[in-house]
Amino acid sequence: MTALSPEILNTLEKQTIELPSWAFGNSGTRFKVFTTPGTPRDPFEKVADAAQVNALTGLAPSVALHIPWDLVDDFDALRRHAEGLGVRLGTINSNAFQDDDYKFGSLTSADDTVRRKAIDHHLACIDVMDATGSRDLKIWLADGTNYPGQDDMRARQDRLHESLTEIYARLGDEQRLVLEYKFFEPAFYHTDVPDWGTSYAQVSALGDKAMVCLDTGHHAPGTNIEFIVMQLLRLGKLGSFDFNSRFYADDDLIVGAADPFQLFRILVEVIRGGGLNNPDVAFMLDQCHNIEKKIPGQIRSVLNVQEMTARALLLDGDALAAAQKANDVLAANAVFMDAFQTDVRPALAQWRESRGLPADPMAAYAACGYQEKIEAERVGGVQAGWGA
Amino acid sequence: MTALSPEILNTLEKQTIELPSWAFGNSGTRFKVFTTPGTPRDPFEKVADAAQVNALTGLAPSVALHIPWDLVDDFDALRRHAEGLGVRLGTINSNAFQDDDYKFGSLTSADDTVRRKAIDHHLACIDVMDATGSRDLKIWLADGTNYPGQDDMRARQDRLHESLTEIYARLGDEQRLVLEYKFFEPAFYHTDVPDWGTSYAQVSALGDKAMVCLDTGHHAPGTNIEFIVMQLLRLGKLGSFDFNSRFYADDDLIVGAADPFQLFRILVEVIRGGGLNNPDVAFMLDQCHNIEKKIPGQIRSVLNVQEMTARALLLDGDALAAAQKANDVLAANAVFMDAFQTDVRPALAQWRESRGLPADPMAAYAACGYQEKIEAERVGGVQAGWGA
Amino acid sequence: MTALSPEILNTLEKQTIELPSWAFGNSGTRFKVFTTPGTPRDPFEKVADAAQVNALTGLAPSVALHIPWDLVDDFDALRRHAEGLGVRLGTINSNAFQDDDYKFGSLTSADDTVRRKAIDHHLACIDVMDATGSRDLKIWLADGTNYPGQDDMRARQDRLHESLTEIYARLGDEQRLVLEYKFFEPAFYHTDVPDWGTSYAQVSALGDKAMVCLDTGHHAPGTNIEFIVMQLLRLGKLGSFDFNSRFYADDDLIVGAADPFQLFRILVEVIRGGGLNNPDVAFMLDQCHNIEKKIPGQIRSVLNVQEMTARALLLDGDALAAAQKANDVLAANAVFMDAFQTDVRPALAQWRESRGLPADPMAAYAACGYQEKIEAERVGGVQAGWGA
Amino acid sequence: MTALSPEILNTLEKQTIELPSWAFGNSGTRFKVFTTPGTPRDPFEKVADAAQVNALTGLAPSVALHIPWDLVDDFDALRRHAEGLGVRLGTINSNAFQDDDYKFGSLTSADDTVRRKAIDHHLACIDVMDATGSRDLKIWLADGTNYPGQDDMRARQDRLHESLTEIYARLGDEQRLVLEYKFFEPAFYHTDVPDWGTSYAQVSALGDKAMVCLDTGHHAPGTNIEFIVMQLLRLGKLGSFDFNSRFYADDDLIVGAADPFQLFRILVEVIRGGGLNNPDVAFMLDQCHNIEKKIPGQIRSVLNVQEMTARALLLDGDALAAAQKANDVLAANAVFMDAFQTDVRPALAQWRESRGLPADPMAAYAACGYQEKIEAERVGGVQAGWGA
Repeated sequence: MTALSPEILNTLEKQTIELPSWAFGNSGTRFKVFTTPGTPRDPFEKVADAAQVNALTGLAPSVALHIPWDLVDDFDALRRHAEGLGVRLGTINSNAFQDDDYKFGSLTSADDTVRRKAIDHHLACIDVMDATGSRDLKIWLADGTNYPGQDDMRARQDRLHESLTEIYARLGDEQRLVLEYKFFEPAFYHTDVPDWGTSYAQVSALGDKAMVCLDTGHHAPGTNIEFIVMQLLRLGKLGSFDFNSRFYADDDLIVGAADPFQLFRILVEVIRGGGLNNPDVAFMLDQCHNIEKKIPGQIRSVLNVQEMTARALLLDGDALAAAQKANDVLAANAVFMDAFQTDVRPALAQWRESRGLPADPMAAYAACGYQEKIEAERVGGVQAGWGA
Repeated sequence: MTALSPEILNTLEKQTIELPSWAFGNSGTRFKVFTTPGTPRDPFEKVADAAQVNALTGLAPSVALHIPWDLVDDFDALRRHAEGLGVRLGTINSNAFQDDDYKFGSLTSADDTVRRKAIDHHLACIDVMDATGSRDLKIWLADGTNYPGQDDMRARQDRLHESLTEIYARLGDEQRLVLEYKFFEPAFYHTDVPDWGTSYAQVSALGDKAMVCLDTGHHAPGTNIEFIVMQLLRLGKLGSFDFNSRFYADDDLIVGAADPFQLFRILVEVIRGGGLNNPDVAFMLDQCHNIEKKIPGQIRSVLNVQEMTARALLLDGDALAAAQKANDVLAANAVFMDAFQTDVRPALAQWRESRGLPADPMAAYAACGYQEKIEAERVGGVQAGWGA
Repeated sequence: MTALSPEILNTLEKQTIELPSWAFGNSGTRFKVFTTPGTPRDPFEKVADAAQVNALTGLAPSVALHIPWDLVDDFDALRRHAEGLGVRLGTINSNAFQDDDYKFGSLTSADDTVRRKAIDHHLACIDVMDATGSRDLKIWLADGTNYPGQDDMRARQDRLHESLTEIYARLGDEQRLVLEYKFFEPAFYHTDVPDWGTSYAQVSALGDKAMVCLDTGHHAPGTNIEFIVMQLLRLGKLGSFDFNSRFYADDDLIVGAADPFQLFRILVEVIRGGGLNNPDVAFMLDQCHNIEKKIPGQIRSVLNVQEMTARALLLDGDALAAAQKANDVLAANAVFMDAFQTDVRPALAQWRESRGLPADPMAAYAACGYQEKIEAERVGGVQAGWGA
Repeated sequence: MTALSPEILNTLEKQTIELPSWAFGNSGTRFKVFTTPGTPRDPFEKVADAAQVNALTGLAPSVALHIPWDLVDDFDALRRHAEGLGVRLGTINSNAFQDDDYKFGSLTSADDTVRRKAIDHHLACIDVMDATGSRDLKIWLADGTNYPGQDDMRARQDRLHESLTEIYARLGDEQRLVLEYKFFEPAFYHTDVPDWGTSYAQVSALGDKAMVCLDTGHHAPGTNIEFIVMQLLRLGKLGSFDFNSRFYADDDLIVGAADPFQLFRILVEVIRGGGLNNPDVAFMLDQCHNIEKKIPGQIRSVLNVQEMTARALLLDGDALAAAQKANDVLAANAVFMDAFQTDVRPALAQWRESRGLPADPMAAYAACGYQEKIEAERVGGVQAGWGA
């Protein structure tokens, strides 16, 4: 069995991956949202499910919220609820895409009333952050257009800057704004923040507390994502990750499920650029468990990130540097692939047990009765989903 | 003004494009379905809206139905309603993707009960066809998987063949089955009918009454769609088109909106292969008017197809053949582009007027008061959409 | 016939498009470079061919050179040769990809000797610029790797910055450096300047005389290129265009041949952002005429840009703004498409004649005897190509 | 250490992967072909290099030839040379893309003289097959066009059928024709055999001795290649593989280097469909070692295929079937991933040693002195490449 050094284990012990509350609710496609027994009906139940993931993996001590999906009357109560379950409330995600007002844009809207409403929503999100103790406001904008000529892309970009400036000004000293980019969807001609360059240019114009959020599913086909990771770390502007995986578009599948080697390469660049266990670079999941069970889907996901991090940490930097220096393409690639191909799962299982965690968190979840319990208890009410 | 010859006008006069009933209902993305005033609440209102498109353009004499979205107690009544408005009921589209049973497949399902239900649904669709006098049963399957290993792709393909065989056997002598393929969505790892080759292999195994349906938005990035049009016509298996356009994935935008030159090239191949005004090759729209008004969206669409057909008919075949024979790449391309770049709109407007149609159907619709009328009248009830 | 206003004609009269000397030499794919009769053997002949394009179109008064392909002993002689033919020497393109030394990189190389050589090559290019009076040094780097792990992407990025800093320091007050980005090829895993964001970050770190060069064929599938045009103009960093078109990768086809509507949209954004006839934004072709005749290939190309510019200038800004303000998606798109669909060719032909140019430059070239002359005269010697 | 069962080892022992002679010659991109010391100057030296790969891996007992690159006066001598080195001559690859005559097509050409020449070339290739004892004639066509309208796609398709019919008729009873498809390159608008559907339709029209060749690098972005493997095996028409890998286009990188999980999935479907160690389904490499050493590049490649085959053989079919039957998405995926993530390298090394092969063929090659020997000996002459 491949051994993991104390140094590697020490590094892995510090790793944390934030869970999105909405991953525990129902999600789907425009064709159908399938419901599943046991799905939470409110933010308290979502947090409880997230806590279950953390209890079994030790990897997920915080839960990101989505406003207004996770609006509660008393955020302090939600905070205490979370803490009582061993987790804390994390990033606040704004939502300016589900009101009819936002049909043609939110922070980019030419309609002052709509734009005001969208800005105010973000200011309200910062109020929530003050209440929850959250550090990050994550902004993903659905803004864009479906037809050439539909709107003035340049003016929208300028208005986006103005809107962000006002939101940025409201941030507390310890708070940050992270701006996510996305290639397309729900807009099908142009998206107002379609690529890392745009997000980088926008946040650079704001200041040090504004950073880029990289969602691994938000790129054009064939994009070398680890290059962008490298570049943003180099430029000091990588604020957070939304991990997931995709074969085609923004499929939001389980991270590591579609191209595990890509996840490995991303983590190698994270480590190379000093982004691992760096508080400035938040790790988060953003996934949709459309057809699989949600809690084990999240367990599988954080384990995938952990396993691939372990492999990336195994990379023999000295051997790699020597092969690179010699321009020995095959030797360099061999060193690189050797780390990827090493099976770290037995060593990780052993290490988990040594820390009082289950060796196999997936099996432990299946055996613990939690799923049966929530399926039995959560009857009636409205299951949480993207619209609720 | 470029003149259109009597021969071209005669050809254009015969052109018909079927409208999808669901284009008049609400549609959207997984993020949000925006509602619009005046949206139909039932199939009768959808047919009325479709008839409006036909009245103003003379291009759309039939309406495709979607079962169960357009299920009515009395299809004979719906048929007479349509005929009273100058249109007829057309293709019947099955739907095996919105019941919870179909979470893991329909015609491909390994669960005999589910597969039986899906087959029976298609048999029931043929009953509807008998009632409506429809010729074509269009099958688009959402079947597929999200994760490698989730199911056995080969066994699913075999079961698909078995299911289709049973459905095919139920077809009347004058009825057909058209099998649509789609690259991805809603399944994100594999789709059971992902490409024209699969659809072709499946329908070829059934018989002469089974054909391929080509949706212009259902291909991998960069695919040369007109080549597929050519090939399917050559193989005698192009049964119908679902027209729309896309920049990224299955965006379902207005046909001709994203890449008008591609639409031109497709129509050139249709004409070249004998597919224009050929009853065996049905023209249909399949679009989502997520943010634009639906009735004028459909008017714009059929006009786009008509305009591009006119340009394609202008192609100087003799000059093209001569340049091709001489391997004069630039001359051949010039002949080709000349047809594309000719502005046929004034001539078409004049011709429309000569036939008692409005010169500008878009303006005529805006002026006719229909939109105001439906917005005022259609209050209350549940607006039609993909889920209804 | 659609009329072009005096204002539009006045704008068109100022338009210039630089021709690449290498477009007149042979080019091809890794599979085969086909030769053509009459191909130039040296830079003087290339310039003569380029002058022919300008003589017939009035659109192409300058010729870009490629060093070392266009190295001559006496640049002053080449300059006078050009001026005698009515054109001038333009952008200098460096080449750090054809020496065996550059197998693993040039400006990014970890080998100090190689990197020194690459920097010196660029300094020598600036010497050429001093001799030719050229303003722009265009840097397209083939640097990248083929295999994950082959080299350290981050260190390469830092070395690139260092190399560019040294080159930038050598620029004269009126000289500029434009850095081109490219998605992939000839490197197949990572490219050191793969996207506009990287080019933007690199040139921003240099200073005001460093700008981004946008080659229309150098993007991932589906990329909204006009958005990037908008963004770079907004950021004040769009230095030049390399025009061409593509269906798949960097196909280097004739501009406007693959997606004329995309070219229209790009030119609309150029005009919107103040980039038309703006000396800071150079228009240039970068194409390969692998199978078609090269001189008429270039004539066709500059005409395509001119025609599409005329269409873009026809865009009714007031009507568009009104429709956009009203969120009338269909009306805004209609205004936009109306400009695109208007056939400006007759008006342009008439206008050309009024200026003493041939109404149909393609026909004029075919009739003028130049092609026959060069095919007869240019016998013997080595035809120019990418390797010479 | 994971053990490989006797059954698996027995299966692996039978596995063979054919090497392409041209992988040992120089290759590159349109920008540059880098030369490497020791590159073969003739087919005899290529075969010698290929034999070295087989000697160290036991995996590659045959060498594919490319005509005319590998034309020799005495094929019997070449055959004996190969046999003396422990390998045999395999598939014959035709080449109808490097003569000036083929600029506008070969088997699809409208010019009868050119088409005759192309057909005759293929008949001559079958003569070579008779001399070498080869079974398969592999046809990859570069035919296509660069511009819409350049030629008549339908007529070309019909002529292709006629040409193939004549070639097919010349095949001996034990000989086969395999027709390769490719998405694009060197043609940039349309390719005459662009997808599996076209290849399938063409070979189906010929007869049982005509099959499809699947090159793993010849698909549109995002294509699910293992689905095509499944489908062609199901249809009984998968004749051979050209293995390589790609990030972008037809990059021709080392198989398994870009997406090892994809290679795993392909091999799972090969096994599922009965294609492993099935004489009807030939495994072959088709790669370009542009910057890495060629012989170890080939060694690495066959080892990658072997390792991934071993992982695919580890797949627990019973557990997978049970999870699939239960629609337990996560369990099914876990079984699938478990096989992929198991490190089979130590077991394979041990097994190699037990068979008298080096445990680490890469290290063995580096140590054996062959590379130094050929670099010293192969001085002078013209290195083999695509043009020679």
